[in-house]
Amino acid sequence: MRVLLPDLPEFHALSGHDEHSVPGVELDFYSQEHVPSGEAEGAVLWLARGDTREKLLRTPGLKWVLTLTAGIDHVKPHLPQGVALFNANRLHDRAVAVHVAALMLAAMRGLHRFRDAQEEGRWTSTRTPNDSGLHTLDGQRVVIWGYGHIGRILEGLLAPFGVQVDGIRSATPDHQRDGLLSRADWVVLLLPSTPETRGIVNAEVLGKLKPGAWLANAGRGNLIVTDDLLAALDSGQLGGAALDVTDPEPLPESHPLWARKNVIITPHIASTTTDLVARGASLTRDFLLTLQQGQEPEGRVTDGQQY
Amino acid sequence: MRVLLPDLPEFHALSGHDEHSVPGVELDFYSQEHVPSGEAEGAVLWLARGDTREKLLRTPGLKWVLTLTAGIDHVKPHLPQGVALFNANRLHDRAVAVHVAALMLAAMRGLHRFRDAQEEGRWTSTRTPNDSGLHTLDGQRVVIWGYGHIGRILEGLLAPFGVQVDGIRSATPDHQRDGLLSRADWVVLLLPSTPETRGIVNAEVLGKLKPGAWLANAGRGNLIVTDDLLAALDSGQLGGAALDVTDPEPLPESHPLWARKNVIITPHIASTTTDLVARGASLTRDFLLTLQQGQEPEGRVTDGQQY
Repeated sequence: MRVLLPDLPEFHALSGHDEHSVPGVELDFYSQEHVPSGEAEGAVLWLARGDTREKLLRTPGLKWVLTLTAGIDHVKPHLPQGVALFNANRLHDRAVAVHVAALMLAAMRGLHRFRDAQEEGRWTSTRTPNDSGLHTLDGQRVVIWGYGHIGRILEGLLAPFGVQVDGIRSATPDHQRDGLLSRADWVVLLLPSTPETRGIVNAEVLGKLKPGAWLANAGRGNLIVTDDLLAALDSGQLGGAALDVTDPEPLPESHPLWARKNVIITPHIASTTTDLVARGASLTRDFLLTLQQGQEPEGRVTDGQQY
Repeated sequence: MRVLLPDLPEFHALSGHDEHSVPGVELDFYSQEHVPSGEAEGAVLWLARGDTREKLLRTPGLKWVLTLTAGIDHVKPHLPQGVALFNANRLHDRAVAVHVAALMLAAMRGLHRFRDAQEEGRWTSTRTPNDSGLHTLDGQRVVIWGYGHIGRILEGLLAPFGVQVDGIRSATPDHQRDGLLSRADWVVLLLPSTPETRGIVNAEVLGKLKPGAWLANAGRGNLIVTDDLLAALDSGQLGGAALDVTDPEPLPESHPLWARKNVIITPHIASTTTDLVARGASLTRDFLLTLQQGQEPEGRVTDGQQY
């Protein structure tokens, strides 16, 4: 079995002769500059730009692709007929949940505002507590829209902070969804990007929220209609937004979202940790060992599956 | 019984005729501009500056003082002989623990750095995960120095994030303390300010930490020798610091701490929430009702007690 891997030290270690290696698999490595030619049974996609990715997907003899991302919408349209696709949700889920919890707590404790004050060397504790705009999460109602594995982890992380969590799934009836949205102090988007979810958070939905509610997005940027988001921020309908993903993405330098004081933006790094590459290589190793044992690895994307 | 209270709507409500009132107690109200004269049995201190506080403490007939702060070091030296002092730790403990958790998560998820990038309209996700400097708290060792009620709440909040918490108490032997400090990824200061704790975090102690460790302070600013902190930040010995309290405090505009990119500063608001005054008034009401029943309320500061 010949497999193409990212040209990174953590993946080269899989071809060594120690406990990290995968005996009996021929490993070759691709980079932005060079995609090896010749037949290969599998390719592991990561940190590969569009053109590199498309070259890899045209590899002759390709039987499977493992993308180490959580999403598959960047791979699926280019996948040749008959090639099996696997994703790696489990690599990302916990860090994403931790990141969302961090964003929510930072927003409630005003850390974005205090950072702005720090930039100006300004000590800003003179207002009375009533005007502080500071909260804990105690008693807050958190609605997780797209309640799957990440949502369950997030619920566990937030439980000691005294929140009440409700989940919205695709099967949730509209009237029930709207009822949950109208009572939420926080709406957390963890939805994938599909034809059904694109632009799902528009002016109409934002108008259903409780005035002053906060919105968090760690799903995909295009879940939200950005112009409608800006309008809801300007009108005060939204208390603020914490966004790890945006539309467009990356957000261009001049984009108005950057300048909104009650918007907290992180650059699509919710799942990033310093050990992410090492964890990705380790997952790849387990994947290859499972294949070698003639079993199907975790994460197979089924035909109808959109995420 | 005549009692002096802060001149705030939440406290005026205690003299009403509804369920918030305290029948049979004569309430009078002080402000920065006016401290009522005449005898009073008790005074409730809050948001009172030094001169107002000292006037209140000279009230004839004073038998007890309830300070709605957690600390007592600003009251104790001026307390007349024979006047009982009560504090209100329980009003503040949970918000402080939540605030510390928020600071720790924000630091590990780089939210301070991303806020700086947002200020410049800069999308900064181009580095590889290995260089991201981003972490969850999984596997991190957190040492809580001053492990009391707040520390126990903090430990409960952090448990689902996969940290290992150890506490240092005044009874912890030096060699054990130093061992814990040398292995900590986070050192969280929750100590009160006493002659023994002033400057307790100095160059010697900072030098014992694991290189790259983070320091959080939600105790008192003067626990840390600020010049030694700056030196440890400059040398890279400290990974960063999250400070809700500083020395001096407030931090003057030109102070070098403001400009350190890996220092996160909040202006002594760890216990602040928008409902803090309402909660303070509610605690005061319970306090007065307990007194009227001839019982001793919670929070009595004993003679030898320094915090």
